Amino acid sequence: MAHIRNAGWQANGLVTLTTDFGLRDPFVGVMKGVLLARFPRAQLIDLTHGILAHWPAEAGFWLARSAAYFSSGTLHVAVVDPGVGSSRRILMAEANDQLFLAPDNGLLGSVLERLEIGGVWELEPGRQPGIFPTRISATFHGRDLFAPAAAALASGELRPEQLGKSCDSWVPSWIDEVRLEGNTIKGVVVTIDHFGNLLTNIDGNLVRRMADPHVYLAGRTLPLKRTYSDVQPGDDLALLNSFDVLEIARAQGNAAEALGLERGAPVVVQDGVRHR
Amino acid sequence: MAHIRNAGWQANGLVTLTTDFGLRDPFVGVMKGVLLARFPRAQLIDLTHGILAHWPAEAGFWLARSAAYFSSGTLHVAVVDPGVGSSRRILMAEANDQLFLAPDNGLLGSVLERLEIGGVWELEPGRQPGIFPTRISATFHGRDLFAPAAAALASGELRPEQLGKSCDSWVPSWIDEVRLEGNTIKGVVVTIDHFGNLLTNIDGNLVRRMADPHVYLAGRTLPLKRTYSDVQPGDDLALLNSFDVLEIARAQGNAAEALGLERGAPVVVQDGVRHR
Amino acid sequence: MAHIRNAGWQANGLVTLTTDFGLRDPFVGVMKGVLLARFPRAQLIDLTHGILAHWPAEAGFWLARSAAYFSSGTLHVAVVDPGVGSSRRILMAEANDQLFLAPDNGLLGSVLERLEIGGVWELEPGRQPGIFPTRISATFHGRDLFAPAAAALASGELRPEQLGKSCDSWVPSWIDEVRLEGNTIKGVVVTIDHFGNLLTNIDGNLVRRMADPHVYLAGRTLPLKRTYSDVQPGDDLALLNSFDVLEIARAQGNAAEALGLERGAPVVVQDGVRHR
Repeated sequence: MAHIRNAGWQANGLVTLTTDFGLRDPFVGVMKGVLLARFPRAQLIDLTHGILAHWPAEAGFWLARSAAYFSSGTLHVAVVDPGVGSSRRILMAEANDQLFLAPDNGLLGSVLERLEIGGVWELEPGRQPGIFPTRISATFHGRDLFAPAAAALASGELRPEQLGKSCDSWVPSWIDEVRLEGNTIKGVVVTIDHFGNLLTNIDGNLVRRMADPHVYLAGRTLPLKRTYSDVQPGDDLALLNSFDVLEIARAQGNAAEALGLERGAPVVVQDGVRHR
Repeated sequence: MAHIRNAGWQANGLVTLTTDFGLRDPFVGVMKGVLLARFPRAQLIDLTHGILAHWPAEAGFWLARSAAYFSSGTLHVAVVDPGVGSSRRILMAEANDQLFLAPDNGLLGSVLERLEIGGVWELEPGRQPGIFPTRISATFHGRDLFAPAAAALASGELRPEQLGKSCDSWVPSWIDEVRLEGNTIKGVVVTIDHFGNLLTNIDGNLVRRMADPHVYLAGRTLPLKRTYSDVQPGDDLALLNSFDVLEIARAQGNAAEALGLERGAPVVVQDGVRHR
Repeated sequence: MAHIRNAGWQANGLVTLTTDFGLRDPFVGVMKGVLLARFPRAQLIDLTHGILAHWPAEAGFWLARSAAYFSSGTLHVAVVDPGVGSSRRILMAEANDQLFLAPDNGLLGSVLERLEIGGVWELEPGRQPGIFPTRISATFHGRDLFAPAAAALASGELRPEQLGKSCDSWVPSWIDEVRLEGNTIKGVVVTIDHFGNLLTNIDGNLVRRMADPHVYLAGRTLPLKRTYSDVQPGDDLALLNSFDVLEIARAQGNAAEALGLERGAPVVVQDGVRHR
């Protein structure tokens, strides 16, 4: 049952933006215009606008792993919102001395699983008169709800508990958890980066527990290395990357293209050599 | 006949940038460098750099519909400029308590048709010594003319009437107007957004006048809905989007790819069902 | 032999970023988060994140030609770093009253050849406790080394000579120099911009020495013009572009696609008509 919770979060004026809007159209620019019209001293950082369209889980995957690199008091706004205009809720979640504002569609699942939660609130747009425009579109809540809420929150004008009510449940992440079977980790490719590196749902701490980890992908065994330049250009490798996630790469090449793999491709890590 | 007109516009230090430069090269960054070297406290927002190359009308389409989301005093700089280095003029237009700086090639047509005009001036680079570089390239006026003019204007150092002379005519927009024939609106697809949604030149107010509007496109009849989630994922729909423009979309999909349509595709809206 | 050198460079708080990270992932955003957490008043400009992956020379080509458009005191951070995590050095180079921070892999070759050098230092991360994180990843030095160093330098907290030791040699640029043979300049296409224009390694000053320059490319002779609109739309031309580099373009078209050319394509300029 929900009880009254007050956020300890103190806004520092920094707002990050994460969307699947891309940069071809003025959608991101218009969101920033609304935000700055209400809070001109906001400091805006684009985390990424290249999230796979309509795929909230990818935004959550990155947010959960990127938040630690931003200062306390940062507000993270994430809009990957295939259900825009429907009755899906909008959440404010405090974690890591930061605040996360996103639709309740699984986007925040990874964040809330991995970071220490301070509180979660459901946005109630009718609660504070004068914050939101009179006419709210059915298709661009990034502009009409998220940006005004972000301005009110990041400026310190309103606190999360003034913009909504405390809530105790939310849509979990869409990303499959790894399966642990004996001395084997079974995971999948979650996303592919600009370089064609394949990023998995396998955390480094699982791999580090193994004495002699071997990585299997698409019928191949890949060596686990420290960095790209530990193999020859053009060679494939696995590594625990800078976000402590198991990654498959081709040195100075594009592993996704070369191996013909996409999101969802299975990846297995086994302790000791695999015998068939 | 031109008379002397003084702008009522008061700069607020905010500058938006709209170009067809893309983000692969340093062109946008260099424009910002020039602007900030002359006006270090400028606040810069990228509206979009993804305008179709050499297509000023698309920039005007978006600017006219985005400007209202920015605060009074904003300066909008738009450089989609296939005639760079020729004798085409550069305009400063006051509308909506904002200032628009763009080549006179139709780019500002939509803005000047749709917003309340405060005044229009033609930039005269020779008029103010010390504002522009001694050597002006023939191919990058964004850097050599627009950015220095923007810095002088947005900082409040110079007013539009000090940088140019009043003018009363300009190149109209390239975008076709809709044709109204009886109970029928005949329009076209003007642009395609990142999600593959098809945006038309048909304004919402025309459609709202109809008792029972039906949308026809590529031999199909599309239902007019409120938002994407009002149909099943994968289904096509029409809607009046958040910029009050008739849009054709595929829920959680890419309508442009799925329907094989491009800019210029005809779209018809009819009041009452169409009988062949 | 290295002697002690102190930088005359005075930080102005402006930091440009040049990488091959693209904008699909949060890598650039995370670098900015780290930078702003340590120096909240930094002013950040994206020069470009679209450098060809693993190709430091392209970053150097653009940096050397763009730096002059930024104010004195600017810090340029460039991370195109296929050798990340290996023993390659990181350099701080003062030139043009600006500071350049980049891996020592040829990236700074063009900058150091073309601009007046004030000093070059090799970053020694162990030298200043508290600047860098305790755990430095092997694959994302942009976040773990470049961003913290940039914050310390751009804020004026530390000077280059406090972060490293003076050095007198570096990896030269990968870009081929032009060959001058009699009345002929033999160069290559170095990069292709967003519009499909082909940019060469041939500087304008070489071409201007010729009385009657003719440009040869892919079996064609191209007229040398002042700007794109000096020919008809769809016609090909050569010009000395706004960065004073010989460029091959198709007016209102895409020369690279139309001519089927890529980086490395040979370009010849000859004084007087060529006779076979």
